[in-house]
Amino acid sequence: VRELDLPYEVVKVPLRQPDSPIHQVNPLGRVPALQLDDGSVITENGAILPFLADQKPEAGLLAPLGSVERSRILSWVGFLNSEVHGAFRPLNRPERFSDEESAHPGIRTKGRQQIGILLAHLEKSLEDKEWLVGGRFTIADAYLGVFLGWADRQQLLEGFTQLQNHLARYRERPAVKAAQAYEAA
Amino acid sequence: VRELDLPYEVVKVPLRQPDSPIHQVNPLGRVPALQLDDGSVITENGAILPFLADQKPEAGLLAPLGSVERSRILSWVGFLNSEVHGAFRPLNRPERFSDEESAHPGIRTKGRQQIGILLAHLEKSLEDKEWLVGGRFTIADAYLGVFLGWADRQQLLEGFTQLQNHLARYRERPAVKAAQAYEAA
Repeated sequence: VRELDLPYEVVKVPLRQPDSPIHQVNPLGRVPALQLDDGSVITENGAILPFLADQKPEAGLLAPLGSVERSRILSWVGFLNSEVHGAFRPLNRPERFSDEESAHPGIRTKGRQQIGILLAHLEKSLEDKEWLVGGRFTIADAYLGVFLGWADRQQLLEGFTQLQNHLARYRERPAVKAAQAYEAA
Repeated sequence: VRELDLPYEVVKVPLRQPDSPIHQVNPLGRVPALQLDDGSVITENGAILPFLADQKPEAGLLAPLGSVERSRILSWVGFLNSEVHGAFRPLNRPERFSDEESAHPGIRTKGRQQIGILLAHLEKSLEDKEWLVGGRFTIADAYLGVFLGWADRQQLLEGFTQLQNHLARYRERPAVKAAQAYEAA
Protein backbone atom coordinates (compact mmCIF):
# COMPACT_ATOMS: atom_id res chain seq x y z
CA VAL A 1 0.00 0.00 0.00
CA ARG A 2 2.91 2.34 0.60
CA GLU A 3 4.25 1.66 -2.89
CA LEU A 4 0.81 2.49 -4.29
CA ASP A 5 0.17 5.43 -1.99
CA LEU A 6 -3.28 4.09 -1.10
CA PRO A 7 -5.01 5.04 2.16
CA TYR A 8 -4.72 2.38 4.85
CA GLU A 9 -4.40 1.80 8.55
CA VAL A 10 -1.86 -0.62 10.02
CA VAL A 11 -2.94 -2.63 13.06
CA LYS A 12 -0.17 -4.41 14.91
CA VAL A 13 -1.40 -7.61 16.54
CA PRO A 14 0.18 -10.26 18.74
CA LEU A 15 0.40 -13.67 17.03
CA ARG A 16 -0.14 -17.19 18.40
CA GLN A 17 -2.26 -15.87 21.27
CA PRO A 18 -5.87 -17.01 21.50
CA ASP A 19 -7.12 -13.58 22.65
CA SER A 20 -5.36 -11.61 19.91
CA PRO A 21 -7.70 -9.21 18.03
CA ILE A 22 -6.47 -10.81 14.76
CA HIS A 23 -8.95 -13.64 15.36
CA GLN A 24 -11.84 -11.24 14.79
CA VAL A 25 -10.46 -10.53 11.34
CA ASN A 26 -8.91 -13.88 10.39
CA PRO A 27 -10.23 -17.00 12.16
CA LEU A 28 -6.90 -18.73 11.57
CA GLY A 29 -5.22 -15.99 13.62
CA ARG A 30 -2.63 -15.26 10.98
CA VAL A 31 -1.30 -12.24 9.15
CA PRO A 32 -1.45 -10.72 6.64
CA ALA A 33 -5.15 -9.89 6.63
CA LEU A 34 -6.55 -6.91 4.73
CA GLN A 35 -9.88 -5.52 5.88
CA LEU A 36 -11.70 -3.37 3.32
CA ASP A 37 -13.98 -0.43 4.08
CA ASP A 38 -17.07 -2.62 3.65
CA GLY A 39 -15.76 -4.96 6.37
CA SER A 40 -14.80 -7.83 4.09
CA VAL A 41 -11.42 -9.41 4.77
CA ILE A 42 -8.83 -10.68 2.31
CA THR A 43 -6.13 -13.03 3.57
CA GLU A 44 -3.08 -14.62 1.94
CA ASN A 45 -0.38 -12.71 0.11
CA GLY A 46 -1.35 -14.53 -3.09
CA ALA A 47 -4.68 -12.66 -2.94
CA ILE A 48 -3.75 -9.41 -1.15
CA LEU A 49 -0.80 -8.44 -3.35
CA PRO A 50 -2.67 -8.72 -6.69
CA PHE A 51 -5.75 -7.05 -5.18
CA LEU A 52 -3.72 -4.03 -4.09
CA ALA A 53 -1.74 -3.84 -7.31
CA ASP A 54 -4.93 -3.94 -9.38
CA GLN A 55 -6.26 -0.89 -7.52
CA LYS A 56 -3.64 1.18 -9.33
CA PRO A 57 -2.56 -0.58 -12.53
CA GLU A 58 -0.58 2.47 -13.67
CA ALA A 59 1.97 1.84 -10.91
CA GLY A 60 3.09 -1.26 -12.81
CA LEU A 61 3.36 -3.50 -9.75
CA LEU A 62 1.47 -6.14 -11.72
CA ALA A 63 0.45 -6.42 -15.40
CA PRO A 64 -2.79 -6.56 -17.44
CA LEU A 65 -5.20 -9.43 -16.96
CA GLY A 66 -4.54 -12.28 -19.37
CA SER A 67 -0.97 -11.20 -20.15
CA VAL A 68 1.89 -13.66 -19.88
CA GLU A 69 3.76 -11.03 -17.88
CA ARG A 70 1.06 -11.05 -15.23
CA SER A 71 1.33 -14.83 -15.00
CA ARG A 72 5.08 -14.59 -14.68
CA ILE A 73 4.77 -12.17 -11.77
CA LEU A 74 2.12 -14.33 -10.11
CA SER A 75 4.27 -17.37 -10.71
CA TRP A 76 7.01 -15.80 -8.57
CA VAL A 77 4.48 -14.80 -5.95
CA GLY A 78 3.27 -18.41 -5.89
CA PHE A 79 6.80 -19.77 -5.65
CA LEU A 80 7.67 -17.40 -2.80
CA ASN A 81 4.38 -18.19 -1.10
CA SER A 82 4.47 -21.96 -1.37
CA GLU A 83 8.17 -22.80 -1.36
CA VAL A 84 10.22 -19.99 0.13
CA HIS A 85 7.96 -18.93 2.98
CA GLY A 86 7.43 -22.49 4.14
CA ALA A 87 11.14 -23.24 3.88
CA PHE A 88 11.85 -20.92 6.81
CA ARG A 89 9.53 -22.82 9.10
CA PRO A 90 11.79 -25.79 9.94
CA LEU A 91 14.53 -23.30 10.81
CA ASN A 92 12.38 -21.04 12.97
CA ARG A 93 9.85 -23.48 14.37
CA PRO A 94 11.16 -27.06 14.35
CA GLU A 95 8.54 -27.93 16.97
CA ARG A 96 6.00 -27.78 14.15
CA PHE A 97 7.75 -30.77 12.56
CA SER A 98 8.44 -33.08 15.48
CA ASP A 99 7.51 -33.38 19.13
CA GLU A 100 10.91 -34.96 19.82
CA GLU A 101 13.26 -32.21 20.92
CA SER A 102 16.29 -34.31 20.03
CA ALA A 103 15.20 -34.11 16.38
CA HIS A 104 15.10 -30.31 16.28
CA PRO A 105 18.80 -29.58 15.57
CA GLY A 106 18.70 -31.98 12.59
CA ILE A 107 15.52 -30.34 11.31
CA ARG A 108 17.11 -26.88 11.60
CA THR A 109 20.23 -28.00 9.74
CA LYS A 110 18.20 -29.52 6.92
CA GLY A 111 16.07 -26.38 6.84
CA ARG A 112 19.12 -24.20 6.20
CA GLN A 113 20.12 -26.52 3.34
CA GLN A 114 16.68 -26.40 1.77
CA ILE A 115 16.58 -22.60 1.94
CA GLY A 116 20.01 -22.59 0.28
CA ILE A 117 18.64 -24.54 -2.69
CA LEU A 118 15.82 -22.03 -3.15
CA LEU A 119 18.16 -19.05 -2.77
CA ALA A 120 20.46 -20.52 -5.41
CA HIS A 121 17.52 -20.71 -7.83
CA LEU A 122 16.60 -17.09 -7.09
CA GLU A 123 20.23 -15.99 -7.46
CA LYS A 124 20.34 -17.59 -10.91
CA SER A 125 17.05 -15.97 -11.91
CA LEU A 126 18.43 -12.53 -11.07
CA GLU A 127 21.74 -13.03 -12.86
CA ASP A 128 20.99 -10.74 -15.77
CA LYS A 129 18.41 -8.44 -14.28
CA GLU A 130 17.66 -6.04 -11.46
CA TRP A 131 14.10 -7.16 -10.78
CA LEU A 132 12.37 -10.51 -11.25
CA VAL A 133 10.01 -9.63 -14.12
CA GLY A 134 9.69 -6.99 -16.79
CA GLY A 135 12.65 -4.79 -15.82
CA ARG A 136 10.70 -3.04 -13.08
CA PHE A 137 9.84 -3.46 -9.42
CA THR A 138 6.68 -5.57 -9.06
CA ILE A 139 4.79 -7.29 -6.24
CA ALA A 140 7.10 -10.27 -6.81
CA ASP A 141 10.09 -8.13 -5.77
CA ALA A 142 8.20 -6.62 -2.87
CA TYR A 143 7.47 -10.11 -1.59
CA LEU A 144 10.99 -11.38 -2.32
CA GLY A 145 12.45 -8.49 -0.35
CA VAL A 146 10.76 -9.76 2.80
CA PHE A 147 12.35 -13.19 2.54
CA LEU A 148 15.75 -11.85 1.57
CA GLY A 149 15.58 -9.77 4.73
CA TRP A 150 14.87 -12.92 6.73
CA ALA A 151 17.68 -14.79 4.98
CA ASP A 152 20.04 -11.90 5.62
CA ARG A 153 19.25 -11.93 9.34
CA GLN A 154 20.04 -15.66 9.41
CA GLN A 155 23.33 -15.11 7.55
CA LEU A 156 22.10 -17.15 4.61
CA LEU A 157 22.93 -14.66 1.84
CA GLU A 158 26.68 -15.17 1.88
CA GLY A 159 27.96 -15.77 -1.66
CA PHE A 160 24.65 -14.75 -3.25
CA THR A 161 25.73 -11.46 -4.83
CA GLN A 162 22.59 -10.92 -6.92
CA LEU A 163 20.37 -11.45 -3.92
CA GLN A 164 22.42 -9.07 -1.79
CA ASN A 165 22.14 -6.47 -4.53
CA HIS A 166 18.40 -7.04 -4.87
CA LEU A 167 17.97 -6.57 -1.13
CA ALA A 168 20.04 -3.37 -1.20
CA ARG A 169 17.91 -1.96 -4.06
CA TYR A 170 14.75 -2.99 -2.25
CA ARG A 171 15.86 -1.25 0.94
CA GLU A 172 16.55 1.94 -0.98
CA ARG A 173 12.93 2.30 -2.01
CA PRO A 174 11.17 5.11 -0.16
CA ALA A 175 8.10 2.98 0.57
CA VAL A 176 10.25 0.21 2.04
CA LYS A 177 12.23 2.71 4.11
CA ALA A 178 9.02 4.18 5.47
CA ALA A 179 7.59 0.75 6.32
CA GLN A 180 10.76 -0.33 8.08
CA ALA A 181 10.98 2.91 10.04
CA TYR A 182 7.38 2.32 11.14
CA GLU A 183 8.10 -1.27 12.18
CA ALA A 184 11.16 -0.24 14.15
CA ALA A 185 9.23 2.47 16.02
CA VAL B 1 -8.48 -26.96 -18.87
CA ARG B 2 -11.01 -29.77 -18.97
CA GLU B 3 -13.49 -27.72 -16.93
CA LEU B 4 -13.04 -24.87 -19.41
CA ASP B 5 -13.01 -27.06 -22.49
CA LEU B 6 -9.86 -25.36 -23.79
CA PRO B 7 -7.50 -27.11 -26.20
CA TYR B 8 -4.42 -28.57 -24.51
CA GLU B 9 -1.96 -31.40 -24.57
CA VAL B 10 -0.97 -33.30 -21.44
CA VAL B 11 2.67 -34.41 -21.18
CA LYS B 12 3.39 -36.95 -18.45
CA VAL B 13 6.92 -36.55 -17.10
CA PRO B 14 9.01 -38.38 -14.51
CA LEU B 15 9.82 -36.26 -11.45
CA ARG B 16 13.00 -35.98 -9.37
CA GLN B 17 15.11 -37.28 -12.24
CA PRO B 18 17.83 -35.04 -13.67
CA ASP B 19 17.18 -36.15 -17.25
CA SER B 20 13.42 -35.66 -17.16
CA PRO B 21 12.07 -33.55 -20.06
CA ILE B 22 10.34 -31.32 -17.47
CA HIS B 23 13.67 -29.52 -16.98
CA GLN B 24 13.40 -28.09 -20.49
CA VAL B 25 10.13 -26.47 -19.51
CA ASN B 26 10.69 -25.71 -15.81
CA PRO B 27 14.31 -25.39 -14.62
CA LEU B 28 13.22 -26.40 -11.12
CA GLY B 29 12.01 -29.70 -12.53
CA ARG B 30 8.59 -29.42 -10.98
CA VAL B 31 4.99 -29.68 -12.11
CA PRO B 32 2.63 -28.10 -12.88
CA ALA B 33 4.09 -26.16 -15.80
CA LEU B 34 1.90 -24.77 -18.58
CA GLN B 35 3.53 -24.09 -21.92
CA LEU B 36 1.64 -21.69 -24.19
CA ASP B 37 1.58 -21.76 -27.98
CA ASP B 38 4.21 -19.01 -28.14
CA GLY B 39 6.57 -21.18 -26.09
CA SER B 40 6.34 -19.19 -22.88
CA VAL B 41 5.93 -21.22 -19.72
CA ILE B 42 3.79 -20.51 -16.66
CA THR B 43 4.54 -22.37 -13.45
CA GLU B 44 2.86 -22.50 -10.04
CA ASN B 45 -0.81 -23.21 -9.47
CA GLY B 46 -1.20 -19.69 -8.07
CA ALA B 47 -0.47 -18.40 -11.58
CA ILE B 48 -1.76 -21.22 -13.82
CA LEU B 49 -5.23 -21.55 -12.31
CA PRO B 50 -6.15 -17.84 -12.62
CA PHE B 51 -4.58 -17.65 -16.08
CA LEU B 52 -6.74 -20.52 -17.34
CA ALA B 53 -9.89 -19.30 -15.61
CA ASP B 54 -9.44 -15.82 -17.12
CA GLN B 55 -9.38 -17.34 -20.61
CA LYS B 56 -13.09 -18.06 -20.21
CA PRO B 57 -14.61 -15.77 -17.59
CA GLU B 58 -18.14 -16.92 -18.46
CA ALA B 59 -17.38 -20.34 -16.94
CA GLY B 60 -17.32 -18.67 -13.52
CA LEU B 61 -14.27 -20.52 -12.24
CA LEU B 62 -12.94 -17.16 -11.02
CA ALA B 63 -14.53 -13.69 -10.73
CA PRO B 64 -14.04 -10.22 -12.24
CA LEU B 65 -10.79 -8.35 -11.66
CA GLY B 66 -10.96 -6.10 -8.61
CA SER B 67 -13.95 -7.91 -7.06
CA VAL B 68 -13.83 -9.09 -3.46
CA GLU B 69 -15.10 -12.44 -4.69
CA ARG B 70 -12.03 -12.85 -6.86
CA SER B 71 -9.84 -12.13 -3.87
CA ARG B 72 -11.74 -14.64 -1.78
CA ILE B 73 -11.18 -17.35 -4.38
CA LEU B 74 -7.49 -16.45 -4.70
CA SER B 75 -7.20 -16.40 -0.94
CA TRP B 76 -8.24 -20.06 -0.86
CA VAL B 77 -5.87 -20.87 -3.70
CA GLY B 78 -3.09 -19.18 -1.71
CA PHE B 79 -3.98 -21.05 1.46
CA LEU B 80 -4.06 -24.39 -0.34
CA ASN B 81 -0.82 -23.54 -2.12
CA SER B 82 1.17 -22.32 0.86
CA GLU B 83 -0.27 -24.26 3.79
CA VAL B 84 -2.06 -27.37 2.64
CA HIS B 85 0.25 -28.53 -0.14
CA GLY B 86 3.35 -28.10 2.03
CA ALA B 87 1.69 -29.85 4.95
CA PHE B 88 1.76 -33.15 3.06
CA ARG B 89 5.51 -33.00 2.61
CA PRO B 90 6.59 -34.11 6.12
CA LEU B 91 4.25 -37.08 5.76
CA ASN B 92 5.39 -38.11 2.29
CA ARG B 93 9.00 -37.00 2.29
CA PRO B 94 10.40 -36.73 5.84
CA GLU B 95 13.90 -36.95 4.35
CA ARG B 96 13.38 -33.37 3.21
CA PHE B 97 13.24 -32.33 6.87
CA SER B 98 16.05 -34.28 8.49
CA ASP B 99 18.97 -36.44 7.44
CA GLU B 100 18.53 -38.49 10.61
CA GLU B 101 16.38 -41.48 9.78
CA SER B 102 15.49 -41.98 13.43
CA ALA B 103 13.67 -38.62 13.31
CA HIS B 104 11.43 -39.58 10.37
CA PRO B 105 8.64 -41.41 12.25
CA GLY B 106 8.24 -38.40 14.59
CA ILE B 107 8.15 -36.03 11.61
CA ARG B 108 5.48 -38.17 9.92
CA THR B 109 3.34 -38.26 13.06
CA LYS B 110 3.56 -34.52 13.51
CA GLY B 111 2.78 -34.09 9.81
CA ARG B 112 -0.49 -35.99 10.18
CA GLN B 113 -1.43 -33.76 13.11
CA GLN B 114 -0.68 -30.58 11.18
CA ILE B 115 -2.75 -31.75 8.20
CA GLY B 116 -5.56 -32.49 10.65
CA ILE B 117 -5.56 -28.88 11.86
CA LEU B 118 -5.83 -27.58 8.30
CA LEU B 119 -8.57 -30.08 7.39
CA ALA B 120 -10.56 -29.00 10.47
CA HIS B 121 -10.40 -25.39 9.25
CA LEU B 122 -11.58 -26.44 5.79
CA GLU B 123 -14.35 -28.59 7.28
CA LYS B 124 -15.63 -25.59 9.23
CA SER B 125 -15.45 -23.37 6.16
CA LEU B 126 -17.66 -25.78 4.23
CA GLU B 127 -20.22 -26.23 7.00
CA ASP B 128 -22.98 -24.24 5.37
CA LYS B 129 -22.04 -24.50 1.73
CA GLU B 130 -21.30 -26.88 -1.11
CA TRP B 131 -18.37 -24.99 -2.59
CA LEU B 132 -15.79 -22.67 -1.03
CA VAL B 133 -16.84 -19.35 -2.61
CA GLY B 134 -19.91 -17.88 -4.29
CA GLY B 135 -22.12 -20.95 -4.32
CA ARG B 136 -20.44 -22.42 -7.38
CA PHE B 137 -17.46 -24.58 -8.30
CA THR B 138 -14.34 -22.40 -8.73
CA ILE B 139 -10.61 -22.95 -9.15
CA ALA B 140 -10.41 -23.03 -5.34
CA ASP B 141 -12.59 -26.17 -5.31
CA ALA B 142 -10.69 -27.70 -8.20
CA TYR B 143 -7.48 -27.26 -6.25
CA LEU B 144 -9.01 -28.40 -2.95
CA GLY B 145 -10.25 -31.57 -4.64
CA VAL B 146 -6.67 -32.62 -5.33
CA PHE B 147 -5.66 -32.39 -1.68
CA LEU B 148 -8.83 -34.01 -0.40
CA GLY B 149 -8.00 -36.91 -2.70
CA TRP B 150 -4.54 -37.12 -1.13
CA ALA B 151 -6.00 -36.90 2.36
CA ASP B 152 -8.52 -39.60 1.51
CA ARG B 153 -5.79 -41.94 0.33
CA GLN B 154 -3.97 -41.41 3.63
CA GLN B 155 -7.18 -42.09 5.62
CA LEU B 156 -7.17 -38.54 6.98
CA LEU B 157 -10.77 -37.63 6.12
CA GLU B 158 -12.42 -39.70 8.84
CA GLY B 159 -14.92 -37.58 10.77
CA PHE B 160 -14.79 -34.74 8.25
CA THR B 161 -18.25 -35.11 6.74
CA GLN B 162 -18.21 -31.82 4.79
CA LEU B 163 -14.88 -32.67 3.22
CA GLN B 164 -16.02 -36.16 2.28
CA ASN B 165 -19.10 -34.64 0.64
CA HIS B 166 -17.01 -32.04 -1.18
CA LEU B 167 -14.75 -34.76 -2.52
CA ALA B 168 -17.74 -36.82 -3.65
CA ARG B 169 -19.23 -33.81 -5.49
CA TYR B 170 -15.84 -33.04 -7.02
CA ARG B 171 -15.46 -36.60 -8.28
CA GLU B 172 -18.90 -36.46 -9.89
CA ARG B 173 -17.83 -33.63 -12.20
CA PRO B 174 -17.42 -34.83 -15.80
CA ALA B 175 -14.12 -32.97 -16.21
CA VAL B 176 -12.71 -34.57 -13.06
CA LYS B 177 -13.93 -38.00 -14.13
CA ALA B 178 -12.26 -37.57 -17.52
CA ALA B 179 -8.98 -36.40 -15.95
CA GLN B 180 -8.94 -39.29 -13.50
CA ALA B 181 -9.71 -41.83 -16.20
CA TYR B 182 -6.82 -40.40 -18.21
CA GLU B 183 -4.45 -40.60 -15.24
CA ALA B 184 -5.42 -44.16 -14.50
CA ALA B 185 -4.85 -45.23 -18.12
